[in-house]
Amino acid sequence: MLPRSLSLVLPTTLALLLSVVLMQTPIPRAQTDRRSASLIVSGGTVVTMDERNRVLAPGAVAIDNGAIVAVDTPARIDAVFRAETRVDASDQIIVPGLVNTHTHAPMVLFRGLADDLVLMDWLQKYIFPAEAKAVSPELVRIGTELAALEMIESGTTTFADMYYFEEEIAATAKRAGLRAVLGQTIIGFPAPDAPTAQAALARAERFVNEWKRDAVITPAVAPHALYTNERATLTAARDLARKHHVPLLIHMAEAEAEVETAREKYQATPVGYLASIGFLGPNVLAAHCIWLTDEDIRTVAAADVGCAHNPESNMKLASGIAPVPKMLDEGVLVGLGTDGAASNNDLDMFEAMRQAAFLHKSATRDPEVIPARVALEMATLGGARALHMADRIGSLEPGKRADLIAVSTASARATPLYDPVSHLVYAAKGTDVRLTIVDGRVLMRDGEVVTLDEAQVLSAARRMAQKVREVTRAQ
Amino acid sequence: MLPRSLSLVLPTTLALLLSVVLMQTPIPRAQTDRRSASLIVSGGTVVTMDERNRVLAPGAVAIDNGAIVAVDTPARIDAVFRAETRVDASDQIIVPGLVNTHTHAPMVLFRGLADDLVLMDWLQKYIFPAEAKAVSPELVRIGTELAALEMIESGTTTFADMYYFEEEIAATAKRAGLRAVLGQTIIGFPAPDAPTAQAALARAERFVNEWKRDAVITPAVAPHALYTNERATLTAARDLARKHHVPLLIHMAEAEAEVETAREKYQATPVGYLASIGFLGPNVLAAHCIWLTDEDIRTVAAADVGCAHNPESNMKLASGIAPVPKMLDEGVLVGLGTDGAASNNDLDMFEAMRQAAFLHKSATRDPEVIPARVALEMATLGGARALHMADRIGSLEPGKRADLIAVSTASARATPLYDPVSHLVYAAKGTDVRLTIVDGRVLMRDGEVVTLDEAQVLSAARRMAQKVREVTRAQ
Repeated sequence: MLPRSLSLVLPTTLALLLSVVLMQTPIPRAQTDRRSASLIVSGGTVVTMDERNRVLAPGAVAIDNGAIVAVDTPARIDAVFRAETRVDASDQIIVPGLVNTHTHAPMVLFRGLADDLVLMDWLQKYIFPAEAKAVSPELVRIGTELAALEMIESGTTTFADMYYFEEEIAATAKRAGLRAVLGQTIIGFPAPDAPTAQAALARAERFVNEWKRDAVITPAVAPHALYTNERATLTAARDLARKHHVPLLIHMAEAEAEVETAREKYQATPVGYLASIGFLGPNVLAAHCIWLTDEDIRTVAAADVGCAHNPESNMKLASGIAPVPKMLDEGVLVGLGTDGAASNNDLDMFEAMRQAAFLHKSATRDPEVIPARVALEMATLGGARALHMADRIGSLEPGKRADLIAVSTASARATPLYDPVSHLVYAAKGTDVRLTIVDGRVLMRDGEVVTLDEAQVLSAARRMAQKVREVTRAQ
Repeated sequence: MLPRSLSLVLPTTLALLLSVVLMQTPIPRAQTDRRSASLIVSGGTVVTMDERNRVLAPGAVAIDNGAIVAVDTPARIDAVFRAETRVDASDQIIVPGLVNTHTHAPMVLFRGLADDLVLMDWLQKYIFPAEAKAVSPELVRIGTELAALEMIESGTTTFADMYYFEEEIAATAKRAGLRAVLGQTIIGFPAPDAPTAQAALARAERFVNEWKRDAVITPAVAPHALYTNERATLTAARDLARKHHVPLLIHMAEAEAEVETAREKYQATPVGYLASIGFLGPNVLAAHCIWLTDEDIRTVAAADVGCAHNPESNMKLASGIAPVPKMLDEGVLVGLGTDGAASNNDLDMFEAMRQAAFLHKSATRDPEVIPARVALEMATLGGARALHMADRIGSLEPGKRADLIAVSTASARATPLYDPVSHLVYAAKGTDVRLTIVDGRVLMRDGEVVTLDEAQVLSAARRMAQKVREVTRAQ
C-alpha cells in the first residue's frame, strides 16, 4: 500500500501525463464513435462563400449522401468523421463548383467556325445554316458530351442551357454527372426539332414531364426571345412553366435591335413588355440583360428574376455592356455565364469571372467596381441565386448539396499566393482545376474525368465537325 | 544472251518498276547529300505570320545556328535537311514565340498583394512601400526567375522590361534563355537602386555598356514617365540611348492625370511634349499610349515609336482604353503586353491577345474590329515591330532567329479546330504551350522547362513572398 500522500499524488501525475499525451497526439475516438461520411476532401484552403465569408487554411469538407455534412479544419473533421474515400487537396483551393447560368452546350461543335462578324451576318451566314443542316439528336448528344468534358475539366458543376433536342442534353448531362437547368427551346420559326412554336411547346411539355422528378436535372421551358416569339407563344410558355413549377429561360435585352422592336411593336422596353404580359417572376432566368433602363432594373429586382451576365460573349459580339454594378446595387440576382462556345469561344467560367471584373472596372472607370470577391460570388452563390437554387448549391455549408471543385496553386502563375480569392479571379485558369464533385459524386479526380471517355468523346466530336464543315462549305 | 526484243523490254520494265518503288517510298538521299540542321520541329500546323500569311498543315521548321533555315512541309524539310535533334509537334500549332512588349518581371512577387483599388491608393499604400522596403538585388533575381518560368511556360519568347536592378534581370533572363529588351529605370525620386535620377542615369550607362554586345539581351534606358522625371532627366536619357544606339522605354499617356500634368506644366499633350523635346524616335517603346489625340497618333506613327498596348492592366486599373484600331489604321507599331503581374495578375500573352480583341470590339461596338488575325499579329510580328526587331523575330521565315512555340490542340477546349488562328486567340491558353524555343535553344519541351529548376524557383519565391508579406503588414 502506498502512503496516503503518494496515493493522492500519483493519479494526479498520471492524469497530467495523460492529458499532455492527449494534447500532443490526440487519440482518435474508436471507429464506431465517429460518424460515417462517404467522402472527405481535405487539405488546402477552403473558400466557403458562406455568409461569414469563412476561409479555412487548411480546411476540409465532409460529404455524405450527396450533401455537405461539415466544413471545418482537417483535424476537427477527422475527429468527428471517418470517410469511405478521402481526397487530398493540399496546395489546392477548395471552392463551391462554378455555376454557368447561360450556355448552349452543343454549340461547342461550332466553336471557331466563324468569328469577328456582326451578329446578323454571323447568325444568318453561319450559325443558322449550320444549325438547319447539321443539328440532329446525334449532334446534340456528341456536342453535349464534348461540352460536359470541357465543363467538368474547368470546374463548372451546374449549367443552365437552352437548345434544341434538349432531352439529349438532359440524358448526356445526367450520364456525365453534371447538375443542369435545361430549357427546351421554343422559337417562332421552323427549328431542327419542331416545325412550329406549337410543336415546340408540346415538345417542351413532354420534356418537362420526363425529367421533372430528377435529382440533378431541372427541366425548363425556354422561349428563345421576345423578338422571335409571338405574344401567344410567350404566354403559353409562361403558363406551361407555372403549371409544372419549372424555370422559364429567355434571352432578354441582348441586342439593341430588340429594344427597337419592343418599342415599335409594343411601345415598351423588352423588360417592360415582358412584365406587362406577366412573364417575369421568381422562376425566370433571363440571359444577357444588357439594355436595361433604371426602371427595368427595379422591375427585374422586384420580380426576383435571375439574370445571366455573359461578359465575354457580349464583348466579342459587341452587344453592349450590361449595367451589372447598378443591378447588384438594386438587388438583382446576377449570375455569370459563358454563352455558347460559338460566341466566346470556350466554356471556362474562370474567364467569365475575370472578364466580369475587368469589363466593369473599365466601363465605369472605377477599379473598385466588381472586386474579386464579388466576381467569385457571381460565379458561385450569385449563379445559384439567379437559378433560384441557392438553398441547395453555391456555397460550402452543411446541408447544401456537395458541388465543389479544387484548384491547384502549385504553378509559377499561382506563386506567390497572398489571397486565395484574388488568385481564383485574377490568376487561376480552368486548366488548374484538379477535382470536380457534383452531388457528392466525383466527376474528375487528379485532372482525369471519370464519367466520360475522353478519347471517344473527342474522336466523335472531330467526326461530327467534319460534317459541319461540309454543310457550311456547301452554302 | 537475250533476244534483242527482250533486251530492250527488260530495262524499260525494270526502270518502270523502279520508278513505281521510288514514287511509293522515296529513297532518301544519302546522309551527306542533306544539309545539317541542329533542330527540326515537325508535324502539326505551322502558322508562319509571314507576308503571305502562310499556314502549313502539316508543316515543319528547320533550325540551325539559332536561326530558321527553312519552313515547309515535313516531307520537303526531311528531303533537304538531316537534324541532330527532332521535336514532334503533332496535334500542336507551331507559331512565332509571343512578344510581351511591356512588363516589370520581378513584380510577380507582388501578384495579388493588393487588388481592386484606385491607382494612387494601390501605388501609395501597397506597391511603393513594398518596393521601398523589399526590393533588393535578391528580390529582383528571385522574382525574375519566377517570371521567366511563367513566361517560358506560357509561350513568351521575348519580353520588354522596366525595373530596378535591371542587371539582375539581364543575368537571369540570359540564364533562362529568354530574349529581352531591358530598361534600367530612371525616376526622379529615391529608388531602391539609385538615390537620384543622376545616379540612375549613371547606373543605366554602366548597364548598357555591360550588355550591349549580347546576342539575346538588349539593354535599354528607361525613364519611368514624364510626370516622374524632369525635362533635363528625360533629355539626358534620350541622349544616353542615342549615344549607345539602344532603345528608350517610357510609360506614355497611361493616366488621365498625366494628361493634366502635361497640359498644366507644358501646355501640351504627353505625346506633344515628348515630341517637342526630341524624345520620340524609332528607338522608343512607349507603354500604354491610352490618352492620345488624333494628332498624337499621327505624331507617334511618323516618329516610328513602338507602342505597348496592355489591355488587361488598363482594364483592371480602369486607366482608360487606348485607341488601338485608330492607331493601327494610322500605321502605329502596336505590340501587346501584360504589364507587371501586380496589375494583371499574370504574364500570359494569350490572355492579352484575347483581351485586345474583346476590349476593342466592345469599346467600338463593332465585332469586326481587331479580328483574331490582327490580335495574333500584335502578339508576334507587331510586338517585334514595336521593339524595332522585326528583322530578327516575329514570324517564322528563313533568316529570322528561331523563336517559336508549339501549342497543344488535344484538349476538349481545342475541339473541334476549324481555324488555327481563331483557336490561338479565342480558345487557347498559356497552359497549352508544350514547346518554347528561343534563338534555336529549347527552353521548354513537353511542358517541362529545362533552363530553370522549377521546384527551387518556386520555393525561393515563396520565401521571398513571406518577407513581402511582413513589410507590407508592418505599415
